[in-house]
Amino acid sequence: MSLNLQYEAIGKGFVQQYYALFDDPVQRPNLANMYNVESSFMTFEGTQLQGSVKIMEKLLSLSFQKISRAITAIDSQPMFDGGVIINVLGRLQTDEDIPQAYIQTFILKPIEGSFFVQHDIFRLVLHNTA
Amino acid sequence: MSLNLQYEAIGKGFVQQYYALFDDPVQRPNLANMYNVESSFMTFEGTQLQGSVKIMEKLLSLSFQKISRAITAIDSQPMFDGGVIINVLGRLQTDEDIPQAYIQTFILKPIEGSFFVQHDIFRLVLHNTA
Repeated sequence: MSLNLQYEAIGKGFVQQYYALFDDPVQRPNLANMYNVESSFMTFEGTQLQGSVKIMEKLLSLSFQKISRAITAIDSQPMFDGGVIINVLGRLQTDEDIPQAYIQTFILKPIEGSFFVQHDIFRLVLHNTA
Repeated sequence: MSLNLQYEAIGKGFVQQYYALFDDPVQRPNLANMYNVESSFMTFEGTQLQGSVKIMEKLLSLSFQKISRAITAIDSQPMFDGGVIINVLGRLQTDEDIPQAYIQTFILKPIEGSFFVQHDIFRLVLHNTA
């Protein structure tokens, strides 16, 4: 394996695809296909989860009814195993709450011509830290 | 190689060590030892740099005289090659500027009983995104 020079396009395409599923309650369960049943790690607001079952339990337990999102920056880098690291800085608004900045880091691992999410770290940027 | 179960301690220890060097102008040049001369990638506010020479040129070109920093959260995960991914959310103040939230992601790769920084992504969280 070697560096995938399409890392910028892969990063942007993945972010678009991931959030299109996430932000649509009907499609959100399909995010399960992006995680490995055993080897995917997620840290959601400090809570550590391993495997697609636990990750999806968390994502499907979020209580908002609607979410809107604006992406501020996507920074991607190629990895030496053919994967891609993607850092997203954005702003999201759930229901009628005030918009909040957030960060999310994904590490995509190559598998059979595609990728899965091996690592996922999500944090809201609280206002008192800005 | 396999998962390093000390990832939490490694993440916290690395962050403390890295910023102790970064925040001291006298010691900052020693950060060069944390990057590989060829295979380290940094994305600094969207600018992509490869290799310790270019990374250090950037870090040593920053124009502030003093910096103070508070860490809000450190999220670490173990990687399957024995490395560690570390996400830092913090707040920094340079000179007399207003404090700004920032995010920094490090991927540490194991090498001969230690680690080097293979990937480094830094972004300020601008106020209009919070």
